[in-house]
Amino acid sequence: MPLNPDYTNEKPVLDHGYVRLLGVMGDDSSPDSDARISTGVAARSEAQQTTLVRFLLRHKHTTPFEGSVMKFEVRAPIMVIREWFRHRTFSYNEESGRYKQLDPLYYTPEADRVSYQAKSNHQGSGDPHPESERFVAEWGDEQKEFEASYTELIQTHNVARELARLNMPVSHYSTFVVTGNLLNWFRFLQLRMEATAQYEIRVYAEAIFEIAKQYFPSSLAAFQDYWLDAITLTRREVDLLKQMLPRAVSEESFNGAVPEPSPMFTKREAGEFREKLLRLGLLERT
Amino acid sequence: MPLNPDYTNEKPVLDHGYVRLLGVMGDDSSPDSDARISTGVAARSEAQQTTLVRFLLRHKHTTPFEGSVMKFEVRAPIMVIREWFRHRTFSYNEESGRYKQLDPLYYTPEADRVSYQAKSNHQGSGDPHPESERFVAEWGDEQKEFEASYTELIQTHNVARELARLNMPVSHYSTFVVTGNLLNWFRFLQLRMEATAQYEIRVYAEAIFEIAKQYFPSSLAAFQDYWLDAITLTRREVDLLKQMLPRAVSEESFNGAVPEPSPMFTKREAGEFREKLLRLGLLERT
Amino acid sequence: MPLNPDYTNEKPVLDHGYVRLLGVMGDDSSPDSDARISTGVAARSEAQQTTLVRFLLRHKHTTPFEGSVMKFEVRAPIMVIREWFRHRTFSYNEESGRYKQLDPLYYTPEADRVSYQAKSNHQGSGDPHPESERFVAEWGDEQKEFEASYTELIQTHNVARELARLNMPVSHYSTFVVTGNLLNWFRFLQLRMEATAQYEIRVYAEAIFEIAKQYFPSSLAAFQDYWLDAITLTRREVDLLKQMLPRAVSEESFNGAVPEPSPMFTKREAGEFREKLLRLGLLERT
Amino acid sequence: MPLNPDYTNEKPVLDHGYVRLLGVMGDDSSPDSDARISTGVAARSEAQQTTLVRFLLRHKHTTPFEGSVMKFEVRAPIMVIREWFRHRTFSYNEESGRYKQLDPLYYTPEADRVSYQAKSNHQGSGDPHPESERFVAEWGDEQKEFEASYTELIQTHNVARELARLNMPVSHYSTFVVTGNLLNWFRFLQLRMEATAQYEIRVYAEAIFEIAKQYFPSSLAAFQDYWLDAITLTRREVDLLKQMLPRAVSEESFNGAVPEPSPMFTKREAGEFREKLLRLGLLERT
Repeated sequence: MPLNPDYTNEKPVLDHGYVRLLGVMGDDSSPDSDARISTGVAARSEAQQTTLVRFLLRHKHTTPFEGSVMKFEVRAPIMVIREWFRHRTFSYNEESGRYKQLDPLYYTPEADRVSYQAKSNHQGSGDPHPESERFVAEWGDEQKEFEASYTELIQTHNVARELARLNMPVSHYSTFVVTGNLLNWFRFLQLRMEATAQYEIRVYAEAIFEIAKQYFPSSLAAFQDYWLDAITLTRREVDLLKQMLPRAVSEESFNGAVPEPSPMFTKREAGEFREKLLRLGLLERT
Repeated sequence: MPLNPDYTNEKPVLDHGYVRLLGVMGDDSSPDSDARISTGVAARSEAQQTTLVRFLLRHKHTTPFEGSVMKFEVRAPIMVIREWFRHRTFSYNEESGRYKQLDPLYYTPEADRVSYQAKSNHQGSGDPHPESERFVAEWGDEQKEFEASYTELIQTHNVARELARLNMPVSHYSTFVVTGNLLNWFRFLQLRMEATAQYEIRVYAEAIFEIAKQYFPSSLAAFQDYWLDAITLTRREVDLLKQMLPRAVSEESFNGAVPEPSPMFTKREAGEFREKLLRLGLLERT
Repeated sequence: MPLNPDYTNEKPVLDHGYVRLLGVMGDDSSPDSDARISTGVAARSEAQQTTLVRFLLRHKHTTPFEGSVMKFEVRAPIMVIREWFRHRTFSYNEESGRYKQLDPLYYTPEADRVSYQAKSNHQGSGDPHPESERFVAEWGDEQKEFEASYTELIQTHNVARELARLNMPVSHYSTFVVTGNLLNWFRFLQLRMEATAQYEIRVYAEAIFEIAKQYFPSSLAAFQDYWLDAITLTRREVDLLKQMLPRAVSEESFNGAVPEPSPMFTKREAGEFREKLLRLGLLERT
Repeated sequence: MPLNPDYTNEKPVLDHGYVRLLGVMGDDSSPDSDARISTGVAARSEAQQTTLVRFLLRHKHTTPFEGSVMKFEVRAPIMVIREWFRHRTFSYNEESGRYKQLDPLYYTPEADRVSYQAKSNHQGSGDPHPESERFVAEWGDEQKEFEASYTELIQTHNVARELARLNMPVSHYSTFVVTGNLLNWFRFLQLRMEATAQYEIRVYAEAIFEIAKQYFPSSLAAFQDYWLDAITLTRREVDLLKQMLPRAVSEESFNGAVPEPSPMFTKREAGEFREKLLRLGLLERT
């Protein structure tokens, strides 16, 4: 099965970046088949596949998602790559400034991206900055100056490329290939689609997410329902909630609210929810 | 700093097994110091350390727990080792039946461990089995028979050890050394202390947990509060809860319930809880 | 690109085992394209691809082999699986004896596989054993006895499956799915195709090797030339060799022996060989 | 066992960098004890320990080196960190430019480090550059300009730190904590002490190597003899060598050259050498 890139699956990101799908192994039925090796019972319908995939992700049975793979080529600023490469389960190959003079591409943010330091959040951006356009222009000038100096060192003076890049700014674009299985991608998306992730990597994560949904729609929907959009209550929060909400809902109102079983909300899932409400003190024990 | 095993830290597990601490790198202040490399600001008090450690685990900032290490020697039945070694981030060295005749130790469960197949749960044990004592006796006999045959093949007939073990039962004990960082141990404990984990590995996880608490009390307490005993509500469950509990608590009753700030429940944590209740529709927006 | 198993690529191994290819991502051109992201220069011919792939493996530039993936379904005795799963970079899903009664399949070696313990080698097999046929027959009987007892516990007495398997011999077959990139597979093959690897896993490695060669012929040929069949001389051995072979070959005889440049032995490779001979003291310095 | 940094073990690297040992788990006897779990036979002497450690490394039995750990704090230019963090088996925590204004430290090479692009080697440095002093002065000026602009954005204009660093050059220093086991460190040293590694990371690897030798002298000596300074002959080279050196040494001259057995060159090792010479056609078959 040759690697068969579908070049329509390329998304532009930031001013000069992109993510481009290079290959996929498996489809939405793969986590189901890999999981069924445990039991030896094959799925009989697509609904059963969906049900199992959702069960697996809900209960963090993650190994069946390791048998499906997505591979991308990405162009991103070095500052984004520095965060991306902290994900150590991916395989990477990156462009090397020792081998070639890198292309003259730099990330310059849109003016409305430039903000004051956030007040409450040590790591984030706050209100829009009134002088942002000036800063953006100055950043662009700095990048042009570096580019001129870098090119002169290499082309006029034949300085070793590995040193000529000494002052290359982290806004410079570089290109890499990244391969990972679905679980690797889930962990990446979970971390980098968070509101606290830096904007510049978040937009890459979102582009990956959009492409992934085309190839593994059911898995990504389950990932969103059970991981991305879940709310985790700590032990202490559970205790406080019990104290604050002494009047729980009745069995009747529970039964009235819970929908008819379907792959998207199975009978088993309703039972799990019931258990959680009991643990939360939000359902009357009968 | 030589490896300095504290042999009092050995706990018996099952009938012939044990976990024995061989070494520790770091203590409860290490995740705090490793995390503070990000900000360059040192902790000024133990309370600040606790606060940061709890914040990190609550938000799944896991890398600072990778710089502290625990190493154990473990004796366990092969059936337990088969599950344990699925944890691929640990480093292992195991006794080899190719090099030596293994010691004549077999796991025979207590009679009250022997149960009917669970009805609702495909993988678990159900009600106690009335004939359990007979089964246990028969298992013991089978083990003695294998042991006699194994010893005869090796000692009388000098058959290659790598083949003499052909029919060795998975109840046979083997011994291994396992090294992992705190994050590796958290993931192991999370999975193997669950009620659905097989009893035989659960008791090993519990023994590890007890020893770990002596060396990293604050980290393990946070792990328990924020990981082990947390309740995660899925997106669908959140929607249903809003529908079922339309009458939220007031800002006053929230403020009345939330305790004074302390390292165990900080002001920031109270704010996070408030946010979650708003997302859950359980707190009145003012 | 859906997972598209080519079921002709199944090879039987041992008496009841097999390896069956489930999926491939990439082909022999993929390591080349992944490596060329570094330099941004595309290969112009197949010969150039081969040259680069061979250069990469010769110099242990391994990351470009991480972007190509092979996935197999394997049936093997538990004793083999125990060794296989020590390879921690693969992804696995295995049949579970908690979920189902495992199929009645056991590994019984051919009589000529049964040997005396090796004399010089602590871990291996030595001369053929004259009583091997009797042992094989006895092993088969033991397996039948276990099977009868296992089936009775589950089917007659409804004992929990997770305990009924207590004395399951490690000769019992189990089935798993394994996914890994080319580098993972190289490491596995390097270790498990060695003469000192236990016969029972070696035959699985050889079956994987045969299938891999069909999909990545050039990469596997380079792996064989530069990894599998290479000879590594230690620093001490180099010193001794210099002492023992004071009369080195002349530049002329070197030039006469070295073949014309080709992708299989490039000019660069000849230069590397020259350097090694100089370091070994086997070539006269001119 | 608390983390007990020995601050004398800090080595300066480049103009403002350093490596500082933060912790060690295990000592030179640990790989030996971890390996002996396989056989259950304890070492009786230090010579036996050395012999086993050397045997293990010679034969790439690497798992016993995974049970010993070294942890460092490192300050290095971002360009070095970019290469270092490609080693994915280490655990890292790095200073964050989102949380704090980074210290005004930049790497400026010594003038004699600045060279022409290498002619034969696409990635390296060649002859010294006559204008190097001017380049170094200009790089220093560029760094001062960036520092002024960075400080002004943060301190005068209160621009969000995560953006103010947009054009930070990769010569800027950052600080991180890195934890890894001995095998992880071997792999790092093997790759980064090579002559083809970029000078700036090579000096860090050498500093780590010097410190490691103090804690694991025997393991590091074996690593040097069997990994770092070994010469690997490919299959093709072996064939050519046979052709070029038809006159092999005699058994007598072999026996005369091989030294008396010692832990540094055991009888087993002499036998292995003999086998290699036979495979190389350099020893007469008798």
